[in-house]
Amino acid sequence: MSAIAIMCSGGDSSGMNPAVKKFVDYAYDKNLTPYLIYDGLEGLIDGEIKEAKHEDVSGIIHLGGTIIRTSRSKRFFEAKYRQNAYENLQKYNIEKLVVLGGNGSFKAMDVFCSEFDISFVGIPSTIDNDISGTDYCLGVDTALNVIKNALDDIRDTSSSFKRAFVIETMGRDCGYLALISAITSGAEICIIPEIKYDLKSLQKRLRQEIEDGRAYLIAIVAEGTESTDTIKQWIQTDLGFEARDIVLGHIQRGGSPSVYDRLMAFEYVAFSIDRLLEKDKVNEIIVYKNSQFDFLHIKDIANKIYKIDDRLLKLVSKMTH
Amino acid sequence: MSAIAIMCSGGDSSGMNPAVKKFVDYAYDKNLTPYLIYDGLEGLIDGEIKEAKHEDVSGIIHLGGTIIRTSRSKRFFEAKYRQNAYENLQKYNIEKLVVLGGNGSFKAMDVFCSEFDISFVGIPSTIDNDISGTDYCLGVDTALNVIKNALDDIRDTSSSFKRAFVIETMGRDCGYLALISAITSGAEICIIPEIKYDLKSLQKRLRQEIEDGRAYLIAIVAEGTESTDTIKQWIQTDLGFEARDIVLGHIQRGGSPSVYDRLMAFEYVAFSIDRLLEKDKVNEIIVYKNSQFDFLHIKDIANKIYKIDDRLLKLVSKMTH
Amino acid sequence: MSAIAIMCSGGDSSGMNPAVKKFVDYAYDKNLTPYLIYDGLEGLIDGEIKEAKHEDVSGIIHLGGTIIRTSRSKRFFEAKYRQNAYENLQKYNIEKLVVLGGNGSFKAMDVFCSEFDISFVGIPSTIDNDISGTDYCLGVDTALNVIKNALDDIRDTSSSFKRAFVIETMGRDCGYLALISAITSGAEICIIPEIKYDLKSLQKRLRQEIEDGRAYLIAIVAEGTESTDTIKQWIQTDLGFEARDIVLGHIQRGGSPSVYDRLMAFEYVAFSIDRLLEKDKVNEIIVYKNSQFDFLHIKDIANKIYKIDDRLLKLVSKMTH
Amino acid sequence: MSAIAIMCSGGDSSGMNPAVKKFVDYAYDKNLTPYLIYDGLEGLIDGEIKEAKHEDVSGIIHLGGTIIRTSRSKRFFEAKYRQNAYENLQKYNIEKLVVLGGNGSFKAMDVFCSEFDISFVGIPSTIDNDISGTDYCLGVDTALNVIKNALDDIRDTSSSFKRAFVIETMGRDCGYLALISAITSGAEICIIPEIKYDLKSLQKRLRQEIEDGRAYLIAIVAEGTESTDTIKQWIQTDLGFEARDIVLGHIQRGGSPSVYDRLMAFEYVAFSIDRLLEKDKVNEIIVYKNSQFDFLHIKDIANKIYKIDDRLLKLVSKMTH
Repeated sequence: MSAIAIMCSGGDSSGMNPAVKKFVDYAYDKNLTPYLIYDGLEGLIDGEIKEAKHEDVSGIIHLGGTIIRTSRSKRFFEAKYRQNAYENLQKYNIEKLVVLGGNGSFKAMDVFCSEFDISFVGIPSTIDNDISGTDYCLGVDTALNVIKNALDDIRDTSSSFKRAFVIETMGRDCGYLALISAITSGAEICIIPEIKYDLKSLQKRLRQEIEDGRAYLIAIVAEGTESTDTIKQWIQTDLGFEARDIVLGHIQRGGSPSVYDRLMAFEYVAFSIDRLLEKDKVNEIIVYKNSQFDFLHIKDIANKIYKIDDRLLKLVSKMTH
Repeated sequence: MSAIAIMCSGGDSSGMNPAVKKFVDYAYDKNLTPYLIYDGLEGLIDGEIKEAKHEDVSGIIHLGGTIIRTSRSKRFFEAKYRQNAYENLQKYNIEKLVVLGGNGSFKAMDVFCSEFDISFVGIPSTIDNDISGTDYCLGVDTALNVIKNALDDIRDTSSSFKRAFVIETMGRDCGYLALISAITSGAEICIIPEIKYDLKSLQKRLRQEIEDGRAYLIAIVAEGTESTDTIKQWIQTDLGFEARDIVLGHIQRGGSPSVYDRLMAFEYVAFSIDRLLEKDKVNEIIVYKNSQFDFLHIKDIANKIYKIDDRLLKLVSKMTH
Repeated sequence: MSAIAIMCSGGDSSGMNPAVKKFVDYAYDKNLTPYLIYDGLEGLIDGEIKEAKHEDVSGIIHLGGTIIRTSRSKRFFEAKYRQNAYENLQKYNIEKLVVLGGNGSFKAMDVFCSEFDISFVGIPSTIDNDISGTDYCLGVDTALNVIKNALDDIRDTSSSFKRAFVIETMGRDCGYLALISAITSGAEICIIPEIKYDLKSLQKRLRQEIEDGRAYLIAIVAEGTESTDTIKQWIQTDLGFEARDIVLGHIQRGGSPSVYDRLMAFEYVAFSIDRLLEKDKVNEIIVYKNSQFDFLHIKDIANKIYKIDDRLLKLVSKMTH
Repeated sequence: MSAIAIMCSGGDSSGMNPAVKKFVDYAYDKNLTPYLIYDGLEGLIDGEIKEAKHEDVSGIIHLGGTIIRTSRSKRFFEAKYRQNAYENLQKYNIEKLVVLGGNGSFKAMDVFCSEFDISFVGIPSTIDNDISGTDYCLGVDTALNVIKNALDDIRDTSSSFKRAFVIETMGRDCGYLALISAITSGAEICIIPEIKYDLKSLQKRLRQEIEDGRAYLIAIVAEGTESTDTIKQWIQTDLGFEARDIVLGHIQRGGSPSVYDRLMAFEYVAFSIDRLLEKDKVNEIIVYKNSQFDFLHIKDIANKIYKIDDRLLKLVSKMTH
C-alpha cells in the first residue's frame, strides 16, 4: 500500500480534527496507509510520524483544536532541517502530504516540494479567513458561532447596565470575523482594516440614538486595527457611556466544530487525497470558490490580499461611519 | 412612504426572526413603511397587520422560531378569504410582500398575486431543505447544529452502555438533514428516501465490526422513510444489539439562529426588498445557487424535486448498503 | 501499595467521567494503586480489570457518559458468577471498591460484600434522583440543564405556531426531573407520579387562559406516569389545541458534566476513598444531606421511597390541578 | 390590593430575570399588586416605577442579565435623594421591597429602611459569591458554567499548540469562581486571594511534568490577586512555555440562567415575599445555609468576610504551591 501523511501547521482551528479523522478513513478506503505527523513542521523535522489506525482518530470529530497538534517553525527555514524532514518521510516511503494551515505554511511547503520529491495539497485552515482565492477557510464557521455565543451573552449583561462593550476579535489583516460578527449580532460599531472609520459621523448618529433612549452599545473591533483602546476611550469621553473592553482571544479558536466545518473538512480532505492520487507531482492549494472545489498554485494565492465581498462591506457601512 | 409587509407561512424555522428584524431595518433605510403580518395566511385573512417600529424587533436576532408567528391555512384556498386578505392589505396600501415559507406557501402566494395587484418575493425557509432551485433554505444550518449537539450527547451515553441508537430526523421527501447529520456525526447507518438501503450488506459489514469490538451503533433515519422501527428491530434481532429510538421531532425547529442563518436571512431580505422596489410586478422566489442570488418563478421550482448533490450522496453510501 | 478499584453499574449518568478521573488522581495522592473495572458487573465477572495510569483518564472531565462503560447484569444474581468476580479481584489484591450506580447495583454489592472480604462504598449516580437518604444523585444537574436547553428551544418553536407540546422526561417512580423542569421552564402542565392530576380543574384554568390569548402550551410528563398520550389527546380534544409529543429519551443522559456534577463527583470520590481507608470493612452508601456528607447502610436506603420536598411539590401544584 | 416592588442593584447576575418573573407571578398569587423599579437605586430616585402585568415578564426566564436593569448610585448616599426615593414609592403605596444585589446595596437599603416606613428583603445576587452568611448567591452557578464552557474550549486549543493559558476570572476579594473553575476544569495552577501561592514549589512540580511530556498548562487567576501578568511572565521565563492570557470579563455575567439559578431565584423570591407579608417591619437579607432558608440582619453579614469552605480550599492546594 502507498503511504500518505497529514500534518497541521500554524495556528490551530476548529475543523482540523474532523479533517484528520476523515483523512484516515478515506485513506483506508483508497487502500493507502495513512500517517499522522505530530506537532507540525517541528515534528516533521524531529520525526514525530506515526502510522494511523482507525482507533487513533475515533471520537475526535466533535473536538476543537487538533489532536496531532500544530506548531510554527523557524528551523524549517534552514535547508538542513528540511533535509531532516525529507529523510524522516523517506523512512516511511511518504511522498504525499496533506497540510492544514495558512499562507505561511503553504509557502514553506512550496519550497519543500521544489527541493524534494514530495507532493502536497494545502487545505486553507485559519479562523482569520484571509486566504486569497478561496471563499472559505476551515474553522471560520465555528469561530463565528463561538463569537456569536459570547456576543449574545454580553448583550444580556450590557442591556442590564446602560453600558458599552468593545469586543476585540481576532483578525490581523482581515476584518472578516469582526465584520460578520457585527452584522449578525446587531452591533452598533464595527472597526476593521478594510474600512476607514469616521468617529465624527458615528458620534452624530449614536448621540441621537442615546438621546432617544439607547441603553447599551456594542462595538466590534478587529485586532489588526489596534484601535480597541481608542474606541473605548472615545465612547467614554465623547459619547458619555461607561465602556468595558473584552478581548476574546483564543476562545475563538476553540469550540466543537460546527456542522459546516465538519462537512467542509470532509470534502476538502477527500478532494485533496483524490488529487494526490491522480497526478504524479502536486504542489497546490485546494480552494472553494462559488460552491466548487479547485486547485491553485501557492503563487496565485500568497501574494494577493484576500478581499471581502463588497456586498458584505456594504452591510456594515453604517457601523463604520 | 411606500408600504411593504413581511409574513411567515408554513412550518417555522430558525432564521425567521433575524429576517424579520432585517426587514424592518432595511425597509426604514429605503424609506419604506414596514408592516408585520402576524399568524401567517390565517392572520392575513383576519387582518392581523401592524406597522413595525424598530423596538418591535429589537432583541430578537438570537431567538429561534418567529415572533410574528406562522400558520397553515385551509381557508386561503377559498377565493372569498383571499378577497378578505387583499382588502386587509389595501387598508394599509400594502402592495409588496416578503413571505418566508416553503413550496406550499409559495403556490398559494402565486395564486394570490395572479388575482390581485400584489407583488411578492418568497424566501425559502424550511428545515427540510427540499426546495428545488436553491442551494439553501433558511433554518437548515441551525437545525443541523441542533441535531449535531443531540448526536454528540447521545454518542457519549451510547458508548457507555454497548447500545445502539436509532435517531429519527425531520425530512418528509428529502433526506438532507439525515444525510448531513450522519456524515458529520460519524454514524454507522443512514436511511434516507434518496437511497435504497440494503440490510443484508450492512449486516455483513457491521457484524464484522461488532466482532472486532464495536461497542455502539448510531443509525440516522429520515422521518419520511418510515423505517425507524424497522431499523430498530433489525438491529436487535439481526445484529444482537440492544437498541433505543429517539425521535428528535420539533427540537430541530428550535435553537438560536446560527451565524450562517442570520447572515443568509439578512441577505435574502435585502435582495428581496431591492427586487420589489426595482420592478412593478414581482411574483418570484429568491434562490441562492453557486454563491449567487437569483429569482425564479414558482413554476420553475414547485414541480421539480430537490435533488441532493451526488457528491454528498456518495459520502453516505457506505452507511446505506 | 494497596489496591483500590472503581466501577460503574446500571444506567450511565453525566458525572461518572469526572468521578473516574478524580478516583485515579486521588488514589495516587493517597499512595494507592487505582484499578478500573470496565463494563460494570459484567466486566467484573469477566475480569475486565486494568491498572489505571494518569493518561487513561486525562481529557475526560468534560465528557458525558463513562469511558469505563457500565452494564446491567443478570449473571451477578448467581453465586458462581459472584465467585468469579471475587477471584478476578483477588488477582490484583483489590479489596476496596467504589461503585457508581443506583439502588439495584448497591443491593447486589451488599450481597457481594457479605459473602466475601470486600469493602465497598456506593456513590448515588442516576439521573432519576430517586435514591432515598441523599439530597443528590450524580448526573441530575447535567440532565436538568440538558432538558432545560431542549425546553427553551421548544418554547421558541411552540410560540411560533399556536401549538401545544407534551414533553416526556425520564423518571420511573420519581417525578423529580419533570417537576424541576416544569418549574424552571415555566410549563403550564406537569404530570408526575407523586401528585394525582385533575384534568377538570386544569381545563377550567387553561381554557380561560386560551380565551385570554395564550398562544402555546407546554406540558411536562414523567415517563413513569405513562400518560404522555392521554395528555396529548386531552389537549387536542378538550382544549382544542394542536399538540405534539416529544420523548426526550436518552438525550437526557448525555451532555458535558455541569460544574455542579463535576464538583459533586470529586467530593463524593474523595470522601469515599477516605472512608475505605479509615475502616477495615465498609459496606455503605455515601449520601449528601443538608450540605453534609454521610454514610448509610443499603438497608437504610433501598427499602424506602425517595420523597420529593414538599416545598417543591407546592411550587408545581398549579400545574397539576 | 397591597403593593410590593422589586429592584435590582449593583452588578447584574444571571438569575435576576427568573427572580423578576417569579416575583410578579407569586405576587398575583398572593393578591398583591407587583411593581417593577427600573435602573436600580438611580431609577428609584427618578421614579422609574411601573405596575407589572404578566406579559411584562413573559419569555424572560431564559435570559441572562435583568430586563429591569440595574445600576450603582452615588446619589443615594445623600439624604435628599433618599427622600425622593421614598416619595416615589409613596405614590404607589409601596412599603414592601425585594432587592436583588450585594452587600453595598443591602447597606444602602438598611439606611433607607431605618429612615422610612419601608420593609425590605435582600436577595444575595452576585457572581462573586462573596456574601457572608449564605452558601449561595444568585448567578454563581450560571457564571461557573459559562467559565467552564470557555475553559473546555480553551483546553482544546491549548493542547493543540504546546501552550500555556492564564485565565483571569472575576472575584475581587473572593476567589470562589477561580477556585471552583480550577478544580472542575482540571487546571494546573490556581491563584486566589485566600491562599498564598508559592511559585518555587509550583515550579518544581510543573518542570517535572513538562519534562515528562506535559503539552499544555492552564492557570486560573482571580482578578483580585492582580497577578495575571506575574503568572504569565513566570510561566514564560521560568517554565519556558509560551503563554497567553485571557481576561474573561463580563462574559461571566451573561449566559442563560442555569436550572439551579432559576430554582434558587424562585425559592428566594417566594420566601422573601412570604416574609414581607408575615411581619410588619422587615429589614433583612434572606440566606441559604445548609439547605435551609433563613433571614439575617445586614449587620450580621456586611462586616464579616465570606470564607470559602476548608474542604474546597484543600482540593486546590496542589495548584497553589
